[in-house]
Amino acid sequence: MNVDGNPYRTIWLTADADAVSIIDQRWLPHRFEVAQLRRYQDGVEAIAQMLVRGAPLIGATAAWSLYLAAREAASERLGPEHVLRAASDLRAARPTAVNLAWAIDRMLQSITDCRDPADQLVRLRAGAEALCDEDVQTNRTIGEHGLPLIRRLQQQRHGEPVNILTHCNAGWLATVDWGTATAPIYLAHREGIPVHVWVDETRPRNQGAQLTAWELGQAGVPHTVIVDNAGGHLMQHGQVDLCIVGTDRVTRTGDVCNKIGTYLKALAAFDNDIPFYVALPSSTIDWELSDGLREVPIEERSTKEVSEVYGKTAGGATQRVRITPADSECLNPAFDVTPARLITGLITERGIVEPSEPALRARFKRFH
Amino acid sequence: MNVDGNPYRTIWLTADADAVSIIDQRWLPHRFEVAQLRRYQDGVEAIAQMLVRGAPLIGATAAWSLYLAAREAASERLGPEHVLRAASDLRAARPTAVNLAWAIDRMLQSITDCRDPADQLVRLRAGAEALCDEDVQTNRTIGEHGLPLIRRLQQQRHGEPVNILTHCNAGWLATVDWGTATAPIYLAHREGIPVHVWVDETRPRNQGAQLTAWELGQAGVPHTVIVDNAGGHLMQHGQVDLCIVGTDRVTRTGDVCNKIGTYLKALAAFDNDIPFYVALPSSTIDWELSDGLREVPIEERSTKEVSEVYGKTAGGATQRVRITPADSECLNPAFDVTPARLITGLITERGIVEPSEPALRARFKRFH
Repeated sequence: MNVDGNPYRTIWLTADADAVSIIDQRWLPHRFEVAQLRRYQDGVEAIAQMLVRGAPLIGATAAWSLYLAAREAASERLGPEHVLRAASDLRAARPTAVNLAWAIDRMLQSITDCRDPADQLVRLRAGAEALCDEDVQTNRTIGEHGLPLIRRLQQQRHGEPVNILTHCNAGWLATVDWGTATAPIYLAHREGIPVHVWVDETRPRNQGAQLTAWELGQAGVPHTVIVDNAGGHLMQHGQVDLCIVGTDRVTRTGDVCNKIGTYLKALAAFDNDIPFYVALPSSTIDWELSDGLREVPIEERSTKEVSEVYGKTAGGATQRVRITPADSECLNPAFDVTPARLITGLITERGIVEPSEPALRARFKRFH
Repeated sequence: MNVDGNPYRTIWLTADADAVSIIDQRWLPHRFEVAQLRRYQDGVEAIAQMLVRGAPLIGATAAWSLYLAAREAASERLGPEHVLRAASDLRAARPTAVNLAWAIDRMLQSITDCRDPADQLVRLRAGAEALCDEDVQTNRTIGEHGLPLIRRLQQQRHGEPVNILTHCNAGWLATVDWGTATAPIYLAHREGIPVHVWVDETRPRNQGAQLTAWELGQAGVPHTVIVDNAGGHLMQHGQVDLCIVGTDRVTRTGDVCNKIGTYLKALAAFDNDIPFYVALPSSTIDWELSDGLREVPIEERSTKEVSEVYGKTAGGATQRVRITPADSECLNPAFDVTPARLITGLITERGIVEPSEPALRARFKRFH
């Protein structure tokens, strides 16, 4: 997608192949900064400190970080265990998104039969490039499968804008390009279908207010930022036609783990008969899990994300301010689980699938 | 309740009867400031700009403002229409809380048969004092009716703390004293029942993070601030035993209008079989309305409440920071309506009432 008119992905190998570039998403929308990952440990930090976030982009960052680890191993003669150490550090950087483990496993698999460091390096670079290219293609395909939903609503609304609510950022900033939840929206917008997006601000880190609003603005998509509390009211009053969110992990039974607060929006959509879709690449499905509420590990992040808010002062400086009393405790669970019964459908690269074990197994031919 | 160990109400006539004092709630928890209302217009501003907020306190402020209007009328020979003008300005200061109109009507009624400005003044002062004293007594009684709910839960939990979730501030800062939703909590705490309160931060104005957390802290009640998104997740995991919120207007059929986001929490409580109570003085019941969703006017406030957040910098200054992109639109509906079907009971000064027209009419003997 474009930033100030110039095409960008969220992660790429620099022209001289010296480093992996990422958009440092912590400073958006106030500052657009590109950061360089030179060693795998930079990638671990970028994931843990959320310079990059979003399940698909976390996977892509891990893939490139393994390439950096192999480069260190080759140039510093660190032995093959260095790449395995990197894999282990990357796996532990964040606990909830399953794409992280998926990307690492896939990269490691590509070098299982190869002990030569130079050869490993070549394979891991090709692997990371392929993984990123596939992510772009997958998201575009997700967009194509989701687009008819928006087209149909437009017909029902006789040309009035289709109002779509989204939570957190499952936009191109959460992937390599296109985004998951936003891919159908961007395609609809390009096709000339009038869309309007309700952007949940998504406390505590405000990925909606800071990232989704920014990227929709860059793409010229009409949108309105609302507090997370407002979505139910808008749904009660016919102001929302469709919800689309992303996810960090889906069980084989169709339970969806996503940014904290998703469950509340799904409840409200269900209560108001509004379709609630989740967009995801199939790498987000955890075939091992059947009970989202009991089995998905929910990351607990720093309470400072709750007690402090990042923004821009009238003077133009970026700053954090504390909003709670100094001696009040906070708690910060980062994700919640929306049971499959509240979800209308999963928009995947293989089409829209009912959130159930038989439907998922049939579509993805997983019958172990 | 106490502030730094000294007893306070939220509104009082100064010792020399020169002005009406209020706590300017815009700066809490970072600064505790008392402001003076000297003319009725100060009261209008205090309500509109939210120096005071909370349905019962808005009513009390309107009552005292009418006293100030009568004083202006008497000393400046402005004629009886001055008090009526004040009543009209006050009524328009905020649209949703019905206690505002209730308090104004009650005050005007007390002077209908009286044309002497000095006499009006005496009656309005007595009326405002009585209204405030009654509010304190009413809230304490609400607390006594709600207390057994907490006591029962404590028995079920075998002495483990009872976890109560509340949204926004329906604490003593929202009333003259005690609060509505907090009254049972304060009584339980004084009785030695271990309670712990989940405080929804309550975007966009953060009345939970800024006011409820502060007043619970002042009273020594254990509490944890969470983002508005987190409550559903906590309920799914058995971390919430009871929800109690306040309200700005209740229809005669038991629909509850309260701070935006209340509906989402009620949905989650319902989905997880957690009792969801609303605490209110009966002056909050609007006997004219039967359909909350269609009939309660929902105030739309400044979008700056969404795009900017108030807090304290590391350097100790209080400051607003913008969190959204400069060119993104925002929308800020301040309230939503929770249908009666999601509410376990209404805790009133006449006991706990089922949220239905027959039950409300029977309890309050309103049969017109």
